[in-house]
Amino acid sequence: MSKRSAFFVSDGTGITAEALGNSLLAQFENIEFEKITLPYIDDAEKACSAVARINRAGEVDGAPAIIFDTIVKKDIREVIAGANGFMVDIFGTFLSPLEEALNSASSYSVGKSHSITNDRNYDQRINAVNFALDNDDGARTRHYHNADLILVGPSRSGKTPTCLYLALQYGIKAANYPITDDDLEDQKVPMPLREHRSKLFGLTNEPERLSQIRNERRPNSRYASLNQCILEIEVFETMYRRERIPYLNTTDYSVEEISTRILLQSGVERRTR
Amino acid sequence: MSKRSAFFVSDGTGITAEALGNSLLAQFENIEFEKITLPYIDDAEKACSAVARINRAGEVDGAPAIIFDTIVKKDIREVIAGANGFMVDIFGTFLSPLEEALNSASSYSVGKSHSITNDRNYDQRINAVNFALDNDDGARTRHYHNADLILVGPSRSGKTPTCLYLALQYGIKAANYPITDDDLEDQKVPMPLREHRSKLFGLTNEPERLSQIRNERRPNSRYASLNQCILEIEVFETMYRRERIPYLNTTDYSVEEISTRILLQSGVERRTR
Repeated sequence: MSKRSAFFVSDGTGITAEALGNSLLAQFENIEFEKITLPYIDDAEKACSAVARINRAGEVDGAPAIIFDTIVKKDIREVIAGANGFMVDIFGTFLSPLEEALNSASSYSVGKSHSITNDRNYDQRINAVNFALDNDDGARTRHYHNADLILVGPSRSGKTPTCLYLALQYGIKAANYPITDDDLEDQKVPMPLREHRSKLFGLTNEPERLSQIRNERRPNSRYASLNQCILEIEVFETMYRRERIPYLNTTDYSVEEISTRILLQSGVERRTR
Repeated sequence: MSKRSAFFVSDGTGITAEALGNSLLAQFENIEFEKITLPYIDDAEKACSAVARINRAGEVDGAPAIIFDTIVKKDIREVIAGANGFMVDIFGTFLSPLEEALNSASSYSVGKSHSITNDRNYDQRINAVNFALDNDDGARTRHYHNADLILVGPSRSGKTPTCLYLALQYGIKAANYPITDDDLEDQKVPMPLREHRSKLFGLTNEPERLSQIRNERRPNSRYASLNQCILEIEVFETMYRRERIPYLNTTDYSVEEISTRILLQSGVERRTR
């Protein structure tokens, strides 16, 4: 397998350049990429160091590096373009045609690339994270009238990370109610949740995967046994169907995928822009 | 202010298309964009509905919509290209030149765009989230030998959301130790942290901003008063400097920016790829 260096160069966090670059590089399965992120390249001096680093990597690899850049300022971008590499240049490629399509000049303003820096979005997200943390264990249900969403599902089906991702990415207030064995017996929506029924969203999982995840936490326990997982999932899915709670099997999905699919299925509106 | 519709169309979550599109649209400050994400457009039927929706928006606006797409499959992308809109087409634009630069055919495989779906990354991230949650309050310091990073700083300087973001995005195990008034008095690193000194990273904030954030939580309290914030920040910054703890002023930064700047300054390695 051949090896190539890939650089993600940005005057901001580099997160956009990484996301974009990774989605393109994932199409080349036969090549092993050494990935390097160079964030906050916001002056000519840093750009020159970046170029030196990119050139060095290309010499070591014996082939020019691939560069994904999301640098707003043209003069800095031009320094990077001087590197010996193949450049996937987002702003250079799309900004002029976009100006034409929008019939408007762009402001070329650095740091505007992340709308998340604006105050309202920031507060929205932080409040949502705090809400998720405060309502993570079902101990307090009195704030559920403020929730956008209440996730239910077996232990280790992904409720907590999903609540946190929904909060951080979309500013959504998601609570997480861990249904207990007692609740399970009558296969109905537990009492404290009934008045918030329209906010419920269920998670489920393949028993084998759930058992594997639980075994990492409590090896060889009844809790982690395949039988217990089969039983629980059966009870949960029966409840979801009987009570018409929308639900999702999370087995093959990343936290991002679970979160975006919940948005799509539930129709809950994101609170950040 | 004129208004235009912008669509983020993807066969996956749409998160990459959104990040990319938002960074380009942020350059046009005079235009108000109505942003619509269409995720999981993975067959011709869904693509046709998307086209209808894009065309309708253009008619309402009286100007064609802008389309940012990260669809891998060529035939689905071609359906979207039939819409009446200006298309910023990532794969269509860059995949062929990249194939040439890499001297390799791409696999055009859907769902590969998020390397986060792979098992090891998933477990890494979920374990890191659980670590952040278990070590968020300083009550247990016995797991600190497993931490990649320990954040310190005044209450509401952003420690918890940053720990969670570092976990979700980079799989980094970050603990969060809330230093108390007692600890503050002698302006030294608190006892339980001393043996983990090399893992410490400090957060600070402008007193005005800190006071504003605290006032939202406990209005008109001593805790939220500007005087108290000035005092605490002074003590923390003195400690950071005296004890040579790297630190960052978070006032103007988003959670993403705080997290990536901490990576850059501390040299801590990310655990996801």
